[in-house]
Amino acid sequence: MMSQVIATYLIHDEKDLEKKAEGIALGLTVGSWTDLPLLEQEQLRKHKGVVVSVTQIEESERVNEYLGKRVKRGLVRIAYPSVNFSADLPAILTTVFGKLSLDGEVKLIDMTFSDELKKQFPGPCFGIDGIREKVGVYDRPLLMSIFKGVIGRDLHYLSEQLKQQALGGVDLVKDDEILFENDLTPFEKRIAAGKTVLNDIYEKTGKKILYAVNLTGKTFELKEKAKRAVELDADVLLFNVFAYGLDVLQGLREDEDISIPIMAHPAISGALTPSEFYGIKSPLLLGKLLRLAGADFALFPSPYGSVALDRGEALGIAAELTKEDEQLKRAFPVPSAGIHPRLVPLLIRDFGIDSVINAGGGVHGHPDGAEGGGKAFCAAIDAVLAGRPLQDAAKDSEALQKAIALWGAHEVTV
Amino acid sequence: MMSQVIATYLIHDEKDLEKKAEGIALGLTVGSWTDLPLLEQEQLRKHKGVVVSVTQIEESERVNEYLGKRVKRGLVRIAYPSVNFSADLPAILTTVFGKLSLDGEVKLIDMTFSDELKKQFPGPCFGIDGIREKVGVYDRPLLMSIFKGVIGRDLHYLSEQLKQQALGGVDLVKDDEILFENDLTPFEKRIAAGKTVLNDIYEKTGKKILYAVNLTGKTFELKEKAKRAVELDADVLLFNVFAYGLDVLQGLREDEDISIPIMAHPAISGALTPSEFYGIKSPLLLGKLLRLAGADFALFPSPYGSVALDRGEALGIAAELTKEDEQLKRAFPVPSAGIHPRLVPLLIRDFGIDSVINAGGGVHGHPDGAEGGGKAFCAAIDAVLAGRPLQDAAKDSEALQKAIALWGAHEVTV
Ligand SMILES: [Mg+2]
Ligand SMILES: [Mg+2]
Repeated sequence: MMSQVIATYLIHDEKDLEKKAEGIALGLTVGSWTDLPLLEQEQLRKHKGVVVSVTQIEESERVNEYLGKRVKRGLVRIAYPSVNFSADLPAILTTVFGKLSLDGEVKLIDMTFSDELKKQFPGPCFGIDGIREKVGVYDRPLLMSIFKGVIGRDLHYLSEQLKQQALGGVDLVKDDEILFENDLTPFEKRIAAGKTVLNDIYEKTGKKILYAVNLTGKTFELKEKAKRAVELDADVLLFNVFAYGLDVLQGLREDEDISIPIMAHPAISGALTPSEFYGIKSPLLLGKLLRLAGADFALFPSPYGSVALDRGEALGIAAELTKEDEQLKRAFPVPSAGIHPRLVPLLIRDFGIDSVINAGGGVHGHPDGAEGGGKAFCAAIDAVLAGRPLQDAAKDSEALQKAIALWGAHEVTV
Repeated sequence: MMSQVIATYLIHDEKDLEKKAEGIALGLTVGSWTDLPLLEQEQLRKHKGVVVSVTQIEESERVNEYLGKRVKRGLVRIAYPSVNFSADLPAILTTVFGKLSLDGEVKLIDMTFSDELKKQFPGPCFGIDGIREKVGVYDRPLLMSIFKGVIGRDLHYLSEQLKQQALGGVDLVKDDEILFENDLTPFEKRIAAGKTVLNDIYEKTGKKILYAVNLTGKTFELKEKAKRAVELDADVLLFNVFAYGLDVLQGLREDEDISIPIMAHPAISGALTPSEFYGIKSPLLLGKLLRLAGADFALFPSPYGSVALDRGEALGIAAELTKEDEQLKRAFPVPSAGIHPRLVPLLIRDFGIDSVINAGGGVHGHPDGAEGGGKAFCAAIDAVLAGRPLQDAAKDSEALQKAIALWGAHEVTV
């Protein structure tokens, strides 16, 4: 089979969708076709975009009324030959959704890479199995907590907060994504302070905890900074990939001297994904493309929390990150935002054990502080895996009991 | 005044907008406030986000019906202290629209940088005045044409197409943005072939024409490639900035060895800008931020062509690119897509002489080919500047006459 990428679009258009599809396939490749001499058609055939399918879906009155025009809706699949582009995401995305993104109501839903093309992307360096080895946890979801309210705070404050979180039994702690280079808690010093706290915990308890430090700054300075982090024995890099570009993530992943896991944060991605009409669908952007480019973890809004994502979209992201693939390692789904212990049964039901349970307020807001919060989560995870109702398990865990008392009012069925 | 960025959002929300605004201002800075001890408030005050204004706008029945809920609408302005972030766009965008972009119906409308902060951004290296010096044209809009149907074609074909365009009198010719690194017309050879053609024209006619070559490939290889282009005496770099990231553009701009103008293409930006509810408003993204990051030219859909942008948005982009600023040079607005000679009066009325008239099909589709197309545009520009109706000027220009005959059926008033 020819090396290619097949893009799937959701199109809303007044015109005939078959015609529109044909126009896209030509317009984004050879430009014109029927008016070309036969000899030129022969030369250009291998470059020509091909309409794979056009599937009309039902008209929507709600959409027609909102757009103020009657539009057909359809899923259109178009194949673009790899010979037309270099094997990098900027070239591929510009081909399949460059000019087209500006052309009316068109949303990019999915992209299917032929094996030959996919081979040119790295995928995660560690993946789920590699991360599990780092923390020595194989049989349950990992637990992560997030630094909270650390802007304007000093290293002492951060270290103390890290310690409290670590004592609760979490596997990972991540920086707040809005913590940038600053005088009080500069990057390198954060790494060093984190090491001190976590090494101390390790020596005392044998528990290995990873700290994801926020890699920030100018694009062309990131590699040097990441290498410095590796030299300082940092555990994981947190990265606001959509503030930079997917290919920047890939560039970090592909640098052999940057040999630690990368955790992709979804900041700014909400500018691209939520519209019904425009942008890029979440499972593609936050799932498939992040994995392809090399994220070991991908954060995204859970379907239940304070910043909620449609459940189908969230499950779609997780499926893209974890489905078996001959070439690409699996990446950890991290459904996030507004997570507290009573949501653990739902999280495990929906995302399974190959996921990371990630909480900020749900850890720090515990009556006994971050340590109590972490313990409540650990008890909740144990309970769910043992098939025990949380209320029952709370009898053996004061931390979980307090968490249920506090967050009990929240809705926990979806 | 404190160094800061003020972000303006359009918010659709069921809840009270004042409360929502307060939540954003705290959530994206210090996290919490009223429950902090006074001493900590003193320490954190300079880090705290501040709600500058909340302006309710009228409810929209159309929006309520589409969203299936009754929402308040309002413009909210929030000030974020610069002390919280490093002076780079990834940090600033993550602060003002990172997590927030995922939080319901919130669109980023504008950002106002305090002078101290703005000084840390380069703006265009050449700008309108610098580009005018390069082409020796001071009193009219520039004219640009675009290579067409060049995928799968060889250098000979490109050279011939370039020559035809150049003979029509254009000031600039740009690569197709979907032309990537390829065996037939590799980057360096395109630059060399372009030089040969355009030097020849210059020697024969004295007319200086610039060729914008598409800078593509992996992010961390772009600088080397751009430097190689400069060594080969390339005129201008075309750049699909939204396939990479605004900060990548800035990195190229700030490298002193990359001393040629940069033309920003809007490919993929349509994934970010068109929704009423989500994303980033065009004048901010394609105007203000591109200029701040260092684009000398910014392409965007014109309000009249095949891929049309709302006229207010297009004018807003142009205003951001060209308004006087003590520090930043002005960048050329390039309203594009579906432009033919009969639109020249509208283009000049709306965008003035400090703009670039840019055509693909409107040049190549001329009955006399690209040379005729360019001549028709030149005649149209001369006519408008002389206050002559096109029909009248067509008496002295066969090329314009033919163009009017061909494109006469098009709607030309907006
Ligand atoms: Mg956060
Ligand atoms: Mg084009």
